[in-house]
Amino acid sequence: LYNHRRNEAVRSFVHSTRDAALEILNDFVLGVDKSGKITFIEEGKNVDRLAQEQGFNTADVENLGPGEFFMPGMVDTHIHASQYTYMGTALDLPLLQWLNTYTFPVESRYRDLKFARDVYTKVVKRTLRNGTTTACYFATIHTDASLLLGQIADDLGQRALVGKVCMDINPMVPQYKELLDESKDETLRFIRELLQKKYPRVKPVVTPRFAVSCSSSLLDALGEIARTLYFQSHISENKEEVELVKQLFPDCLSYTDVYLKHGLLTDKTVMAHGCHLTDEELKIFHKNGASISHCPSSNISLMSGILNVRNVQKHKVKLGLGTDVAGGYSASILDAVRRAIDTSKVLTIEHPQLRPLTFEEVFWLATLGGSEALSLDDRIGNFEVGKDFDALRVNVSVPGGPLDVFPEDVIVEKFLNLGKTPWLSFISLFLQYG
Amino acid sequence: LYNHRRNEAVRSFVHSTRDAALEILNDFVLGVDKSGKITFIEEGKNVDRLAQEQGFNTADVENLGPGEFFMPGMVDTHIHASQYTYMGTALDLPLLQWLNTYTFPVESRYRDLKFARDVYTKVVKRTLRNGTTTACYFATIHTDASLLLGQIADDLGQRALVGKVCMDINPMVPQYKELLDESKDETLRFIRELLQKKYPRVKPVVTPRFAVSCSSSLLDALGEIARTLYFQSHISENKEEVELVKQLFPDCLSYTDVYLKHGLLTDKTVMAHGCHLTDEELKIFHKNGASISHCPSSNISLMSGILNVRNVQKHKVKLGLGTDVAGGYSASILDAVRRAIDTSKVLTIEHPQLRPLTFEEVFWLATLGGSEALSLDDRIGNFEVGKDFDALRVNVSVPGGPLDVFPEDVIVEKFLNLGKTPWLSFISLFLQYG
Ligand SMILES: [Zn+2]
Ligand SMILES: [Zn+2]
Repeated sequence: LYNHRRNEAVRSFVHSTRDAALEILNDFVLGVDKSGKITFIEEGKNVDRLAQEQGFNTADVENLGPGEFFMPGMVDTHIHASQYTYMGTALDLPLLQWLNTYTFPVESRYRDLKFARDVYTKVVKRTLRNGTTTACYFATIHTDASLLLGQIADDLGQRALVGKVCMDINPMVPQYKELLDESKDETLRFIRELLQKKYPRVKPVVTPRFAVSCSSSLLDALGEIARTLYFQSHISENKEEVELVKQLFPDCLSYTDVYLKHGLLTDKTVMAHGCHLTDEELKIFHKNGASISHCPSSNISLMSGILNVRNVQKHKVKLGLGTDVAGGYSASILDAVRRAIDTSKVLTIEHPQLRPLTFEEVFWLATLGGSEALSLDDRIGNFEVGKDFDALRVNVSVPGGPLDVFPEDVIVEKFLNLGKTPWLSFISLFLQYG
Repeated sequence: LYNHRRNEAVRSFVHSTRDAALEILNDFVLGVDKSGKITFIEEGKNVDRLAQEQGFNTADVENLGPGEFFMPGMVDTHIHASQYTYMGTALDLPLLQWLNTYTFPVESRYRDLKFARDVYTKVVKRTLRNGTTTACYFATIHTDASLLLGQIADDLGQRALVGKVCMDINPMVPQYKELLDESKDETLRFIRELLQKKYPRVKPVVTPRFAVSCSSSLLDALGEIARTLYFQSHISENKEEVELVKQLFPDCLSYTDVYLKHGLLTDKTVMAHGCHLTDEELKIFHKNGASISHCPSSNISLMSGILNVRNVQKHKVKLGLGTDVAGGYSASILDAVRRAIDTSKVLTIEHPQLRPLTFEEVFWLATLGGSEALSLDDRIGNFEVGKDFDALRVNVSVPGGPLDVFPEDVIVEKFLNLGKTPWLSFISLFLQYG
């Protein structure tokens, strides 16, 4: 139970709703039941009535200190846990060359479970500390290491969709690929064994790397498997890749049509990037309820292109933010927030009629938008009654912290631009209840 | 005296030279005399001979720990100390509207010395902690508050050029401007009183805000004053501003010509932005030895434009990095480093033949380039014998720090992308000697 009293520098629950990108609830009291679900969120003046109705003691209400607020845990809709080792380096090549030179050689090392345990523990700890309470992970082709990532996320208390990567084509780095049947069988084993663990917040996601790395037969098989499951892949990240997919799938009308034809574009699908999707393709996304993970830092670093978020919004396609480690140099969704604003402003410089994204809109993308993109908005994304209390407790006034607060400050905007961890004492609160 | 021994994760002095954007000196020993100047930097194997020659005891050589290296203190060639209060907010308008709406009302408050002391103390502490050992500041039109900024920089041990802002035109916010004679007299008083303090590392810089805010008479007067002094202003930040300057100075051939004609383009001049300078103007910069402060974060946030650094290099114009707080949302030069790479990659996306900046090149810009841009490269910028030992001691292996180090890591690149303060124990070492 938390109560914001007046006369504090910050005294708010801050979240997004269906109607408002940013809603600030001052002097509110929020209740959480034993299972971690939100039971009420009401104005503080009702606390006595609520205490009676809900059967708690008002003396047990915990008050926030000055400079503190709650916001929903952030959602990273696209991150390669297996690329964490070289994050922040090796950003001098475009996508296809980058994969062959840096990525595939590193990913092939996850056959070694000791290596996998070390890296996956570090990436889950790091992202949790950065405020990512929910992550949608690419692992590698190795089933056991991917299962280990699921176990580590569960152990450390992160909500996660975990994908064992599928790929049966890799001409440049042939030691890092699977045979067709192997990929199918191991995917089925991965899903079966992960579901058997009955982790409350960790689930499998069917994960072909991208159309370039998968035969049509493999995509067909995965389409069968993914019918009722979560599904993720990459789409239309860079122009060279788009051209290559056209050549590889001459019978398909577009990159989007490749996934559609193979049964992989569902309302539980999230596709990373989409920088070069046409309006026709966005219409297909909307019609099928599929979503896009916007990874602006990666798109800049690998010089892939810039997603026009306003056009995605116009087509009413679900959208969240992704770090895309290690194409993106940072595992922090706060950095993705800043780069999402930056890239929208770069587009405005080129096309002055395009309105840049506001900080309120990127806050929405990092929380409620992300939960919708992963089809988890029935459980998380904001402080609606019935959802899990999946929250960050932010304190912008920590001594020695990364920002100086002045009386007139727009605290949430300042936090989004300058907040860093762990000074802001991010606490993933569902850990205490789940 | 510092000695890097082998068999440590990082064992380097890292700096730029005239020939190499990034030179890594492993197992070197560096000596500093009582006045803080570098007396030698040689391979560690020479330590016995050096001890004899220089008269020190090898037992007094201090060794670095694993994960540590030294780099030159970073140089912020353009920052508005007076805009620090709203840094990270109010970034929804282009330059001229942003000045009228947010900036001028705030700057007018620095008449209040108590307010000035509070903010200026915070900004100097913050930038020092961020690794900025040298800053080129815009203050406000208020002489006494600007003198106070100089005193605070000296007290806290930051090297600084401090500018009292001059402006006698401000149609939209008329309460924030000076009369012509007042601006001249107060500038002379500011210079005289600051020089009288004989601060070893804090000097005045003549600072007309920009051509839009200054009458031709004021610019003439400042040109007289600036003849032998440091000089700073803004140029060609946004297209609307460039057009306005054309209208205001119909007799000048270009924005650059305005400053040239008024005697303000010297080899001690640094001009912020220059996004829209023509090749002709860059040639004038080169010919006069004037430099540019590249402020990529601000240029994106205010949607001003993107500086083509390759073209500046082609014209051999001196270039450093600036945060341009509060047009830039961050007071950290490490953020400017990242945004300089980002903006160069954005240009490469648009023009694939343009090579993006490398991390080595932006390291150079943040250190030696910055020292050249401020005409301070005889004192600082790298670890040359005879220069001040103005250095940061970086530790990338601090427990709980912002990055995880893996065996194959390119440490300097990872640090530039992911380093944050104060985990990296930035120590401005000249503080111990100056
Ligand atoms: Zn990816
Ligand atoms: Zn400026």
